[in-house]
Amino acid sequence: MRVDGVPYRTIWPGEDGRSVRIIDQTRLPWEWRVPELTTLEDAIEAIWTMRVRGAPLIGATAAYGLWLALARDPSDAALEQARAGLSAARPTAVNLRWALDAVAEAVRGLPAEDRATAAYAKAAEIADSEVETCRCIGEHGLPLIETAHEAKGRGGLVNVLTHCNAGWLACVDWGTALAPVYRAHDAGIPVHVWVDETRPRNQGASLTAWELDRHGVPHTLVADNAGGHLMQQGRVDLCLVGTDRTTRIGDVANKIGTYLKALAAVDNGVPFHVALPGSTIDWTLADGREIPIEERAPEEVTHIPGRTDAGEVIRVALAPEGTPVANPAFDVTPAGLVTGLVTERGRCAASAEGLAGLYPERAG
Amino acid sequence: MRVDGVPYRTIWPGEDGRSVRIIDQTRLPWEWRVPELTTLEDAIEAIWTMRVRGAPLIGATAAYGLWLALARDPSDAALEQARAGLSAARPTAVNLRWALDAVAEAVRGLPAEDRATAAYAKAAEIADSEVETCRCIGEHGLPLIETAHEAKGRGGLVNVLTHCNAGWLACVDWGTALAPVYRAHDAGIPVHVWVDETRPRNQGASLTAWELDRHGVPHTLVADNAGGHLMQQGRVDLCLVGTDRTTRIGDVANKIGTYLKALAAVDNGVPFHVALPGSTIDWTLADGREIPIEERAPEEVTHIPGRTDAGEVIRVALAPEGTPVANPAFDVTPAGLVTGLVTERGRCAASAEGLAGLYPERAG
Repeated sequence: MRVDGVPYRTIWPGEDGRSVRIIDQTRLPWEWRVPELTTLEDAIEAIWTMRVRGAPLIGATAAYGLWLALARDPSDAALEQARAGLSAARPTAVNLRWALDAVAEAVRGLPAEDRATAAYAKAAEIADSEVETCRCIGEHGLPLIETAHEAKGRGGLVNVLTHCNAGWLACVDWGTALAPVYRAHDAGIPVHVWVDETRPRNQGASLTAWELDRHGVPHTLVADNAGGHLMQQGRVDLCLVGTDRTTRIGDVANKIGTYLKALAAVDNGVPFHVALPGSTIDWTLADGREIPIEERAPEEVTHIPGRTDAGEVIRVALAPEGTPVANPAFDVTPAGLVTGLVTERGRCAASAEGLAGLYPERAG
Repeated sequence: MRVDGVPYRTIWPGEDGRSVRIIDQTRLPWEWRVPELTTLEDAIEAIWTMRVRGAPLIGATAAYGLWLALARDPSDAALEQARAGLSAARPTAVNLRWALDAVAEAVRGLPAEDRATAAYAKAAEIADSEVETCRCIGEHGLPLIETAHEAKGRGGLVNVLTHCNAGWLACVDWGTALAPVYRAHDAGIPVHVWVDETRPRNQGASLTAWELDRHGVPHTLVADNAGGHLMQQGRVDLCLVGTDRTTRIGDVANKIGTYLKALAAVDNGVPFHVALPGSTIDWTLADGREIPIEERAPEEVTHIPGRTDAGEVIRVALAPEGTPVANPAFDVTPAGLVTGLVTERGRCAASAEGLAGLYPERAG
């Protein structure tokens, strides 16, 4: 999407043919930095420190990381070592391992001198494919916003509430939940986004607010606590969120707090849609309660990074020293609360039948 | 309640008979300061800067402020000027004006030399009465925790989720929502509190976590987003929150985000109780949607105070500069989501009948 008028992806090959550029997301929203990754170690560090985050972007970065490794040493030993190093950078990211497998498969059996070129081509293909997936999610989600616009007599803004960051910064371009928003905005439909700040990591305040602002999409930041009140007041036309894992019956595990917004949406008759690439569907699971929920570090709750008046980014403590903390990273929204799913193949009900209709080859 | 073993109130007369001490709540949880108020101006400043907050405590502070004013100048003119100054310190605090009226009534018609003494006596009476009200809320709420303890076969902790700070720091002692918790803890019932951090002002992280810790009540801080997940997992036995205004049919306006927790409680079969002194009931209103909701400064969302590693308390920015913000301070939880109300006169259903039964003289 655009940053102050210039189109960007979150990752792109350097002009020298020997590097990859990324947007350093740990510096947002305070500083615009596009560091160069020139080695495998750079790629591992970028993933591990979350300069890049979001499943599709992590996968693309890992794929380019393998290319950087093979450009230096195309041996099988180097390939395996690079795969292990990249894989360990975010142990639970399924997409990362899928991307590594795809690149390894593409170079298998090739002579050493052809391996880097093949890896580069596969990494570029993965990145392009992620963009196309998100673009399709945007196309299929667009009618939801058009319908809301029609329902308001084509007057006023369509108000979309989103949680966390499921925008282009989490992907290579477009985003998942935000793809329909960007598509609608670019098509001239007046759309406005309520941005949940998304404690404890504040991805809404720091990333979603930033990317919407830079692309020029009207938005308003709110505390996570405010969404129910906004829906009670009729100030939300639809909710659009992403998902980290979707079961085959349509339960969705997404950023902690998503479930509360789904409850409020149902209570107030607000449509609640979840956008996802098919790759996030876990066909082995039905009941979302079986999804293991990551418990993250207490410091995410007791401390927060921010910018001082002097412009320095530091971390401050918010709670009494030693306060016990629980920090579940995700919650599960049961399919029954979800109005519909938006995928790269189209929209469907959040149900086994709905998903099987779109992905018959997986639903078995 | 106790601070490291020593019993405290949030406001108490100085030993010199010419001052009042308060706990400076703007310094919590980082610093323990008990400044002395010796003049009317001190009292106004303490209320205005929120060194004291919470309706009962604001009222008691205002009453003592009138005493300090009359001790310096017992004239009618000084009395009226002091009332106006204190009243303007928090324009929407109903309790503040009620306390000022009570003190003014107590000194009316008295000779100048008796006024300060009468004002002091009334202020002390108001403070004691607030303590007694909260103590009674604790007594009447205790069975809720006892019942939960019985339901668990007297094994394990009773897990109470609370939102914002409705503890003794918001009152003179005991608190409203936390009064039953302190009462149960002191009675030896093993109780544990899930403390919502309560964005944007973080009263949970900074005040509730602090006061529970100092009194020795087991507790765990969580992001506001986490409560629904905890309830889904069966880790909450009951919710206990306060209210800023209650309609005569039992709708409650409380800190923004309360409504979301009530929805989750209903969805998971968790009892959701609201504790209140009868003084917060607005007998003129039925529908909670008529309660005006205060919109507060955007800086509460875009910035946050915290302590640096060096021990300095500073404010940092969390969002891109100039991000538009909405910051509603309260939301309304409809009576239908509330399991019951806990007042100083006993418990009742959140309904017109329930409240009329406890307050027949007000229900008309």
